[in-house]
Amino acid sequence: MKRITLNMHCPDKKGIIAVVTNFIHQNKGNIVYIDQYVDRVQGIFFMRLECELKEKNFSKSSFIDNFQEVIGEAYAMEFNLFENDQKPKMAVFVSKYDHCLYDILARKESGELQVEIPFILSNHPDLEPIAKRFDIPFYHIPVSKENKAEAEKEQLKLLQSHGVDFVVLARYMQIVSPKLIAAFKDKIINIHHSFLPAFPGAKPYHSAYERGVKIIGATSHYVTEELDAGPIIEQDITRVTHLNSIQDFIAKGRDLERIVLSKALQLHTARKVMVYQNKTVVFS
Amino acid sequence: MKRITLNMHCPDKKGIIAVVTNFIHQNKGNIVYIDQYVDRVQGIFFMRLECELKEKNFSKSSFIDNFQEVIGEAYAMEFNLFENDQKPKMAVFVSKYDHCLYDILARKESGELQVEIPFILSNHPDLEPIAKRFDIPFYHIPVSKENKAEAEKEQLKLLQSHGVDFVVLARYMQIVSPKLIAAFKDKIINIHHSFLPAFPGAKPYHSAYERGVKIIGATSHYVTEELDAGPIIEQDITRVTHLNSIQDFIAKGRDLERIVLSKALQLHTARKVMVYQNKTVVFS
Amino acid sequence: MKRITLNMHCPDKKGIIAVVTNFIHQNKGNIVYIDQYVDRVQGIFFMRLECELKEKNFSKSSFIDNFQEVIGEAYAMEFNLFENDQKPKMAVFVSKYDHCLYDILARKESGELQVEIPFILSNHPDLEPIAKRFDIPFYHIPVSKENKAEAEKEQLKLLQSHGVDFVVLARYMQIVSPKLIAAFKDKIINIHHSFLPAFPGAKPYHSAYERGVKIIGATSHYVTEELDAGPIIEQDITRVTHLNSIQDFIAKGRDLERIVLSKALQLHTARKVMVYQNKTVVFS
Amino acid sequence: MKRITLNMHCPDKKGIIAVVTNFIHQNKGNIVYIDQYVDRVQGIFFMRLECELKEKNFSKSSFIDNFQEVIGEAYAMEFNLFENDQKPKMAVFVSKYDHCLYDILARKESGELQVEIPFILSNHPDLEPIAKRFDIPFYHIPVSKENKAEAEKEQLKLLQSHGVDFVVLARYMQIVSPKLIAAFKDKIINIHHSFLPAFPGAKPYHSAYERGVKIIGATSHYVTEELDAGPIIEQDITRVTHLNSIQDFIAKGRDLERIVLSKALQLHTARKVMVYQNKTVVFS
Repeated sequence: MKRITLNMHCPDKKGIIAVVTNFIHQNKGNIVYIDQYVDRVQGIFFMRLECELKEKNFSKSSFIDNFQEVIGEAYAMEFNLFENDQKPKMAVFVSKYDHCLYDILARKESGELQVEIPFILSNHPDLEPIAKRFDIPFYHIPVSKENKAEAEKEQLKLLQSHGVDFVVLARYMQIVSPKLIAAFKDKIINIHHSFLPAFPGAKPYHSAYERGVKIIGATSHYVTEELDAGPIIEQDITRVTHLNSIQDFIAKGRDLERIVLSKALQLHTARKVMVYQNKTVVFS
Repeated sequence: MKRITLNMHCPDKKGIIAVVTNFIHQNKGNIVYIDQYVDRVQGIFFMRLECELKEKNFSKSSFIDNFQEVIGEAYAMEFNLFENDQKPKMAVFVSKYDHCLYDILARKESGELQVEIPFILSNHPDLEPIAKRFDIPFYHIPVSKENKAEAEKEQLKLLQSHGVDFVVLARYMQIVSPKLIAAFKDKIINIHHSFLPAFPGAKPYHSAYERGVKIIGATSHYVTEELDAGPIIEQDITRVTHLNSIQDFIAKGRDLERIVLSKALQLHTARKVMVYQNKTVVFS
Repeated sequence: MKRITLNMHCPDKKGIIAVVTNFIHQNKGNIVYIDQYVDRVQGIFFMRLECELKEKNFSKSSFIDNFQEVIGEAYAMEFNLFENDQKPKMAVFVSKYDHCLYDILARKESGELQVEIPFILSNHPDLEPIAKRFDIPFYHIPVSKENKAEAEKEQLKLLQSHGVDFVVLARYMQIVSPKLIAAFKDKIINIHHSFLPAFPGAKPYHSAYERGVKIIGATSHYVTEELDAGPIIEQDITRVTHLNSIQDFIAKGRDLERIVLSKALQLHTARKVMVYQNKTVVFS
Repeated sequence: MKRITLNMHCPDKKGIIAVVTNFIHQNKGNIVYIDQYVDRVQGIFFMRLECELKEKNFSKSSFIDNFQEVIGEAYAMEFNLFENDQKPKMAVFVSKYDHCLYDILARKESGELQVEIPFILSNHPDLEPIAKRFDIPFYHIPVSKENKAEAEKEQLKLLQSHGVDFVVLARYMQIVSPKLIAAFKDKIINIHHSFLPAFPGAKPYHSAYERGVKIIGATSHYVTEELDAGPIIEQDITRVTHLNSIQDFIAKGRDLERIVLSKALQLHTARKVMVYQNKTVVFS
């Protein structure tokens, strides 16, 4: 049996669910998961569907063509088809902090995170020993004002030559270039160490301490050109008190960053996130 | 037995705790609670202490004079003494939303909230029936651009004639005048329906929906001249998803507002909150 | 337009969703909400669906008959149809604690809880003044070992004469009789003050304190014959520390009880809860 | 400067705080942290204190003798003195699950967890490669009914020969022998995958699924002879729904186990946990 995932969205109309489920039915597919959502304010229909098909007959491209002909055109539908047995290839960008990197690698090892990691890339050499520990190629591409354009070219080349599907910025302390963002639209995932939109930009724990908040947070989002303003995938918070120093904020924050980033990665790799108008639909 | 609470703060020095505990000891007091905190960045010492004293001998003013003479002056200490059996008088300002008002009144009835409520004040007449239900005087003071100064004068007069200790803005949808804020410094408690500093000002649930956040919050804080920027007492959050409409945000938010505001009121009435440099120290 | 809710479950089979959505389609209904869930371990299909129908043509009984004939029989489906504009009638049972009662009444007043409350019933007279405040009939039916059978008969008579749809035990400190449970199967909602299955039965806060737990909870569930073992609708918890006395547990618990019970009531009145094999499916 | 931590408890008496702070004062110590708690039900006083002393004059044994003579005897006080620059030696026991092990090792590497790890011990060989990755000795001691007594002897010998201070059972799926528990009283930390006291013993996620709970949890506690009934250090929970399978429970639980265990380890290594009457006092 072949198991596939279909994500789709289109202007909301009566009867879409019936039309799609009939299509699967007629193709002798067995729907094992279906979830839909209608944004009534915008009038948009979203659906995520997993089904099992007979392996023998399955051709990805002909399924797509068929679906496009029968449904896609009539409903002005945008859709993506994923084969569930294909693990996405994820590049990991880091700087000097190691906690998110360790967390990602451990989860990959234990099978919690269903990805391939073709390489780790950093603007600093510090975390190379960790890459070695886990037998993953490590590329050190320093970034300075002078070499910025060239560094980006190198990054892009690496991403393309390895057939990378998406990128995770695991506390990569650099702003990613618009070119890279355009090439990987809704495919670069960042972890920001505040409950956005509070405290965007640099040193959010310091700002949170200064403001005297009683909760701190972390936010995982897709990277867009506007800093820390992309579609939010996942957020979480923890309580702080007057007893906590900035160092305590940072320490407590590390756990948040780990958990929030790994949840976002799991949702993305399970193809459960759909982006629309700078917001996300996250299926369960 | 007389039970009193002493809140104090001063520049941090060696041996303060010993000096204060000795003072209580020598006055035949039995310390039943002591908590202290040092802000090492600012070099400030905070302490909250509850003790039992022989009723017969107790005079509030002479205790204060004595404490000031022996310790207050030497350590440049600011302190407040409260008699635990004195319930503070709290005025409640509301507009049209009733959920926080009901919550406060129910908690007062059941003894959860140890306050007296001399009156409820509103710029709208809508909630008068609730005040009647709970047998509490209700004053309707409409506020418009034209009568603003006069309305404030009336408010202030009411607060003073009733000997009000502090004010709660239980979803009072008006900006309080600087005069009132000055007269009740660190004594006006507001509930704002977002996790500040995100979404200050009007319609935070709408902004949160627009931004596509995955958590919404509420914040209780002391009112200062800068809108929604005063010292935070308590915050809490709840999760939302793409499934939730703005109406859902508002409905979920009502529970947050109730809980966060009532916690702040309980902390304030128990004299557990100290304000310093636009932040709070909240003793447990 | 008539808006109805259909809840259904049956043995899982291919194509059920298509069959049901087609049925609605053919009856000129517009599906505005659909959610389904398959328990793969048990092989059971659950669906909740809201749709709009033309008011003119609508007859509840003929719709039910039609649905039963076309789908119900073929799929061995159990289903319930609710008209969304019909508020359920909820009886409130209390003893002496007032916090859940106040919370329920305030939510009803503000429109958060879409129910009618034909009466409040108690084994003690203490809360009658609250009922009066909210102009709701109050019945005092004392329960003792001697009069138990008779008291139950009286309760049942009241429930039936008022056409009560479901019962909430808002800290009603009595065990409900099997007869009542049988008459209101999956229609009596209790709030228990622990995170079940920990600490069932009496005095859970005392047991929690004794055990030294770091979290306490509350659980709302349908009442079954086995004490505190019915299908769980909603649970929540809050943190405690060694600083908290049993009195603190009880005080913190009151907020939990309020929130958890009111969420359960909102889910039940919105017909979002389906019971199966002593568990609940809670649609969003 | 020498920084030390003093943990103490004794029957509650008037004036203890003043006596202890005076003692530190007279020994030219500067108190940088003090926290105390009185269990009023049991009449026990607890205090945790950190202070700085002149390095030159400091002798641990003479400080202890002096403290015992001046205060310890008079107040029937039990106390422990720790030198803050001494990292405790922690042995890690595992079976086949790797997520807690990875988490502990990553935290040690990044400095979050201030411990030395002399060895990892397992009843299975599976996790040896991870130990190798982190250059930590790994001992494989199989445990069967037949060799149980001998295996324990070997374990105890290893613990003693390495000067181990405390043991963490990082999902070690064996019951530890009473002998080991006696030798390391309040020094063996376990992570149990439920919110105890719910679901003690084997397969708690399965039991939680069966019961239909809406929250699952994890509990870190000191091991005592009674299974899963020792003093609780830390607990946390996460929400589940009917959508979650047992596999989902297990996956969500892994994050809980990681976080809860690591918090307990941080508290224990910072000497912030005091055990009394099967409960813990956890200082902040």
